[in-house]
Amino acid sequence: MKKGFFITLDGSDGCGKSTQAVLLAKRLKELNFDIVCTREPGGTKVAETVRKILLHPKSRISPIAELLLYEACRAQLTDELILPAINSGKVVICERYSDATIAYQGFGRGLDRNIIFKLNNIATAGLEPDLTILLDISVEKGLDRAFARGKDRLENEDFVFHKKVGMGYKWLAGKFPNRIKVVKPNGTIEEISERIFNIVAKQMKITKNKL
Amino acid sequence: MKKGFFITLDGSDGCGKSTQAVLLAKRLKELNFDIVCTREPGGTKVAETVRKILLHPKSRISPIAELLLYEACRAQLTDELILPAINSGKVVICERYSDATIAYQGFGRGLDRNIIFKLNNIATAGLEPDLTILLDISVEKGLDRAFARGKDRLENEDFVFHKKVGMGYKWLAGKFPNRIKVVKPNGTIEEISERIFNIVAKQMKITKNKL
Repeated sequence: MKKGFFITLDGSDGCGKSTQAVLLAKRLKELNFDIVCTREPGGTKVAETVRKILLHPKSRISPIAELLLYEACRAQLTDELILPAINSGKVVICERYSDATIAYQGFGRGLDRNIIFKLNNIATAGLEPDLTILLDISVEKGLDRAFARGKDRLENEDFVFHKKVGMGYKWLAGKFPNRIKVVKPNGTIEEISERIFNIVAKQMKITKNKL
Repeated sequence: MKKGFFITLDGSDGCGKSTQAVLLAKRLKELNFDIVCTREPGGTKVAETVRKILLHPKSRISPIAELLLYEACRAQLTDELILPAINSGKVVICERYSDATIAYQGFGRGLDRNIIFKLNNIATAGLEPDLTILLDISVEKGLDRAFARGKDRLENEDFVFHKKVGMGYKWLAGKFPNRIKVVKPNGTIEEISERIFNIVAKQMKITKNKL
């Protein structure tokens, strides 16, 4: 490929994004793709520092400040890491991206979705993922998993908040069906990984010869 | 006063904002006003942490990420400190506010001014200062002073950048003449302070009896 490919993995807390990102990267590396793995908020020095503020359980942050901090992290990550990687032909796998802000700050916090779409556009310089894998776990199951590893500031929110976030992801999947592919995280980790890889291979037009 | 009053001090680096903010606060306290002094970026725990990132000479920050971080600091400061203080009848004196983003990121960095006006509006929830004192120092003199105390990341920019910032402040003063009052920082610190206080007293309608 001359131009790279941009894949995001998204979904409610505890949906298994990180595990699946690692497995997907491994699989693509075995096919000799040049892979960059990253995450939001974070992925650059500045954004990782902001991540600590955003997720610290005791940070006092207004909903609008929270939104702007996420967008700032996104802007830095896009400019410093994602765009240069894609432009040099690499495959970027990113845990969370613009969709998460619609789900968490739009649906969860109730902020104006049109404002968030505009901010997403400013922060990403118009970049959209070529493919988004949405891991559609039930809120109950996701939170059980997420809480088992300790709660961050967002995970600390109540059940109703997380229910709204889940609705947000469903809304996004309905609105952008060409880009967002929903994967039910049922079965073993390997089975889920296989399902994700098949979708990625199709979208990236990886031929059977190569597989 | 039932409702408070919101004063900002702004201007190019080295214009003497901090010194004059302290003197103005002292003078108003002597008249029994309840004063809150703060600054941008900063003024709250979260925003002071972001301030360190923004001003650190070695931070790598894209222009859009920089803009969004300043707006995030503004949103938090407005929500946590400025609005509650004004709503409880206090006088807020803030070093830098929305104008600085038009001057530095709009004119200095060349980012779209309409986007910045929109972001300012989102971050401040529509709040505007009742009065802005613009300390109109020459760029050369301001930088001499600012550099004498060591350079931060923004001050580290070249002379052309600071010239553009200065042009930005002039443009703002022309656009919002009712709100922005230009003060030439000539004479002693006390003379400048006296000139600022006279403007403030007039705008706050402090009667001569009280003086």
